[in-house]
This record gives sequence, structure tokens and C-alpha cells, in this order.
Amino acid sequence: MSTQKVRVGFIGLGIMGGPMAGHILGAGYPLCVYNRTASRVEELASRGARVGASPAEVAAEAEVVITMVSDSPDVEKVIGGSEGVFKAIRPDSVVVDMSTISPEVERDLSKLLQSKQCHLVDAPVSGGDVGARNASLAIMAGGEREIFERVKPLLEVMGQPTYCGSVGCGQLTKLCNQILVVMTLLGISEALAYARKNDLDPRVMVEATQGGAAGSWQLSNLASKIIDRDFAPGFMVDLMDKDLRLVLESAETSGVPLPGTFLVAGLFKEIQAQGRGREGTQALAKVLEAMAGL
Amino acid sequence: MSTQKVRVGFIGLGIMGGPMAGHILGAGYPLCVYNRTASRVEELASRGARVGASPAEVAAEAEVVITMVSDSPDVEKVIGGSEGVFKAIRPDSVVVDMSTISPEVERDLSKLLQSKQCHLVDAPVSGGDVGARNASLAIMAGGEREIFERVKPLLEVMGQPTYCGSVGCGQLTKLCNQILVVMTLLGISEALAYARKNDLDPRVMVEATQGGAAGSWQLSNLASKIIDRDFAPGFMVDLMDKDLRLVLESAETSGVPLPGTFLVAGLFKEIQAQGRGREGTQALAKVLEAMAGL
Repeated sequence: MSTQKVRVGFIGLGIMGGPMAGHILGAGYPLCVYNRTASRVEELASRGARVGASPAEVAAEAEVVITMVSDSPDVEKVIGGSEGVFKAIRPDSVVVDMSTISPEVERDLSKLLQSKQCHLVDAPVSGGDVGARNASLAIMAGGEREIFERVKPLLEVMGQPTYCGSVGCGQLTKLCNQILVVMTLLGISEALAYARKNDLDPRVMVEATQGGAAGSWQLSNLASKIIDRDFAPGFMVDLMDKDLRLVLESAETSGVPLPGTFLVAGLFKEIQAQGRGREGTQALAKVLEAMAGL
Repeated sequence: MSTQKVRVGFIGLGIMGGPMAGHILGAGYPLCVYNRTASRVEELASRGARVGASPAEVAAEAEVVITMVSDSPDVEKVIGGSEGVFKAIRPDSVVVDMSTISPEVERDLSKLLQSKQCHLVDAPVSGGDVGARNASLAIMAGGEREIFERVKPLLEVMGQPTYCGSVGCGQLTKLCNQILVVMTLLGISEALAYARKNDLDPRVMVEATQGGAAGSWQLSNLASKIIDRDFAPGFMVDLMDKDLRLVLESAETSGVPLPGTFLVAGLFKEIQAQGRGREGTQALAKVLEAMAGL
């Protein structure tokens, strides 16, 4: 690529994609955007972004197309659909999918794009809407190393990219991240329910344990929210439920029994059944409390 | 108590109790020791400790009696048995039980000791034999606040004491600690098995996730041991199995279902069935690997 900034397309301007695209525009990249709900493009358009009428129109304008949508079928449609990216993308372009979706779907899309001499980098993120606004997302990227290096400066506008391996390895890493998060959170939820039911001050318990082998980011940052009954979302139950479905589907495909993750996934269904899908993941604690009659 | 150092008794000179008693002697406390296997008293005796022929003899010599044995029945025997502490303890003495045992048993022993105007502080520790040798144990203490303050300088010779509440709250906190530890470890074991089975470099996965919401002490300190196939014990499977039994018994008594801890406890039985009871807790990863056919 030239020393001029690459032309970027951005598809999916939701709570994450909106601020991410804003950082790209702010960094001086020529930007063309598309969103299914058209009203979301207005702010970026007023700042100078071009607006495409379809993912295909965005792809026709861009050398790098970023997608940030909800789930595997959304990415498949945005790329492979009748008005999709694949229809209009030009040779040697790169699609960077920053959605959290199935690793297997990423590999299939990569093969599709290769048929037009194009490349895929899967680059899901961690850090939530706060990370998106502050450009501090952890970005877990998979793809050919050379292609990753090509888009790395662009990713650095949104956060800290880590190269994880071949196509799909970004998603695999993100799904590992979610396994780690929910299992640690279940431990915290069980310890808090056990403490409260036994008249042990949960704040004392957290204080006494967080500095040692039991310590975790969530024990230091989410446990106090549970104790303070603050269930506002840092990361929403409905989204974690989706990610856990991706984990279990992928684990099934690859023949890896994950008994703990399977158990937590069931408990997340219970949170949703209680009508708490839009609360933060720390609402898991309430399921354990209910079991204990608290 | 006077400005003179209190006379201390120490019962149970195992891998933990041996170095702990050594620190007390080193700090200048008059010390009388007892151990079931008599050879273990020799080193301390050569450094000036008196040796009691029974727990009762130790109690007769001491204002504070520390017990550091394996399990609830051992503590019950050492304190309430025919040659036990209770037989000879003098009024206003304090028993500090630093074993990890049942919170309910601690409360019962406290009542027994009250009948002789004596006091119990339960003060289980975390930090393993390394912490015992370095006097850097985390000490979780339960009992009357005033009694805790009385023995605090003595506890500080062995590590950092935290006051957790009434009698039993030290044990409750320790059991919470173990819940947190095993659930986080199960998450790490599942994430590693899933990564390896899907050809994701486990080191890359750990590197990419440990700085965020998935981060934990164990992810930063035990995951690399699993990857390097180092299963030497920091904390032994057999001991964690014992602690998980205490957790589940206490949870049953207090009516707190702990589905995740229950699951992990079953997996620890599987580690033992594989003959790995004397390996470190990170051997849990091997159970998940075996499930995945790795």
C-alpha cells in the first residue's frame, strides 16, 4: 500500500461500531460507511464520511472493509448476500471482521474471499462500549501474518491488536476469553452466595481473597458491583449468551467437552428467563442467590 | 497480656506447621511443641523449643495454643481427645486453629473452650509451603475481635492476618477462597483444552487474554505450568479434594447449592482416580485434555 492512508469501509455502526468508525475517521482515513438502520450514519456523514447504500457499495469504495455486526448469519449476509461485500470487492482488498462469530464461518468466508484474490482477518474485540469509545479495545486477530501487518496500523486506531494465528484464531482466542470470564464469574457468584448465606461479610471475603491465588480481574472489579446491587451492563447477558452458544457449537464441532462452560451456559439461560437479558453478566450472581433462598 | 512475650504451644509440625513454628521460635516466643510423629520435633528442640508428650502437656505450658493439623477430626482429637488441649488448658487461654476444617466444627470447639473461659480463633491460611517458609501466608481469622487483636502480633510472625468476623468466619473465607480458585482453574483448563484441540497456540491465548476481564492470578501463574507440563504441587490435589469436601458439606448444611463447585469436586475425584493426587491442582487440566482426546 502507498504512504497515503488506505480507503476504509465500515459496516455496522452499533454501540461498538459507531465509535470505532469515528476513531478511523478522526485518524484521517477516507471512510465509507453502511448501517442497516440508516439514521446511525448521520453523525459520521456530518463529519465527512461517505455513505454507501449497501455493503457492496462500501466494498466498491474501499481497500479495507471492516464489519462489526452481531452474529455469524449477519456477517455471512453482509459479505456473501445479494448486496454484499463479495459482490463488489476488488482484488487484493482485505475484509476485517471484528464481530464475535463462529471460527468455522470465518474460515469459510476466507475461502470465499480468496476466490477473488481477497483476504480475511478475523479480529474480534474485548473491552465493551467503554473500550470502543476510548479506543482501548483488546483486538484478537487471525489471518495471514503479512495481511495482519498490513491492517495493523488501522487496528491500532481502535485499540491494541494481538496476532493470534491463522484465520479463525482471533475468534478462537475471543471464545477462550469468554470461557475464562464466565467460569471465574461463576466462582465469584458461588462464593458470594455461600458467604452471604453463612453470615460472612462478602466485602471482607473479597478483600481477604483477592490478593492471592483466588484473585482475578472480575473479583476486583465486578464483585463489588454485585454486593452494591449494581447490575448495569459492562457486558450484557444477552451478548454473553450468544457468545456461549458460539463456544459450545465450536466445542461440539471440534470434539472438546466443556462441562463447566456448558453448566454456565445453562445458568445464563436462567438469567434470561428471569427477564434480565439486558443486565450485566454479573447478574449471574442472582441465579445463585435464588438457588440459596437469598 | 504483659509486655513479655506470651508462651506459645504449637501442635502439628508438618510441611506447613514446621516452618510456622520455626518463625515463632525465631521471633523470641517461648515455645512448646507437639507432633504425632515425634521425629519432627527434633529441629525445633535443638533450637530451644520445649517438647510436650501430648497436646495436653503443650496446653499446660502455654497461653496461646496453635493447632495446624489436617482435617476436622484431627482438630477435634487434638483439642477434645483424652490427651487433648481441653484437658489441661488454663482459663483465659486462646486456641488458634490454623488448620483448614469445617466452620461448624470450629463453632462447636469454641463453645467447648468457653466452658473453661477459653477462646478460639480460627485462622486458616493460604499460600502453601512456600508461604509458610517465607512467613508470607495470608491468614483468614475468625473470633471475637478483642481476642483476635490479642493474638495478632503472633500471627504477624507467620504472615498477614485479616479479621473476617466471628468464630468460623476464617474457615468460611478460606472455603470461599477455594471455591474461587477451583472455578477459575476449571475455566483455564477448559480454555486450554479448547485452544489446543483447535490448533490455537495456548501461549498466545494466555498472552492475549490475561490483561483483560478474563485475567486472574492463576491464568498468569499456573497456565504456563500446564503448557510446560509442570505438574509439581504448589497446592496438592489431595488437599484440594479435602477442602472441596469441606465446602460441599458446609454448603449442604447451610442450604447453598454450588453447582459449579460440585462439578469441579467430581473432576478432582477423577484426577485422584488417575493416580495424580500428589500433583498440583493444575493437573485438573489433564482431565479436560483427556475428555477432548488430547
